[in-house]
Amino acid sequence: MKYDVEVKISLKKGMLNPEASTIQRALALLGYEVQDTDTVNIVKFSMDEEDTNAVEKEVDDMCQRLLCNPVIHNYEIQISPMRDE
Amino acid sequence: MKYDVEVKISLKKGMLNPEASTIQRALALLGYEVQDTDTVNIVKFSMDEEDTNAVEKEVDDMCQRLLCNPVIHNYEIQISPMRDE
Repeated sequence: MKYDVEVKISLKKGMLNPEASTIQRALALLGYEVQDTDTVNIVKFSMDEEDTNAVEKEVDDMCQRLLCNPVIHNYEIQISPMRDE
Repeated sequence: MKYDVEVKISLKKGMLNPEASTIQRALALLGYEVQDTDTVNIVKFSMDEEDTNAVEKEVDDMCQRLLCNPVIHNYEIQISPMRDE
């Protein structure tokens, strides 16, 4: 069965996020006052697997080995059966 | 009133996404077969405004001027009143 997978990757609390602070500073220079700026990356893909558990196990593996750095990143995995099949 | 804002920035359909194709190739090298890899960036912040309409107008402005390149990006704005106030 085909599954759609979404992995949300964010920096752990307390890690500096230079991308976010640059955005906040640039917005301030343009006159927009915003606070607590943060950035999150999402990686989406689809894959073939037996069931949701197998997908979850495999995607967790991918996160640990390639997609994330577990020392500095939090990740959240969302799995949904593919719609148009 | 304080609002939490989330801007989801993705490449328009048909734009090449080298980040996504590199991820897919690297996953394949590690033995994970995935398809249709795509990446999305989220910028989150909070801001003070009168009402949701005012927030939406201002954030749309920010997207056009700084956060996105309207030629190649799609963006989606999510606004929610801040919880803990």
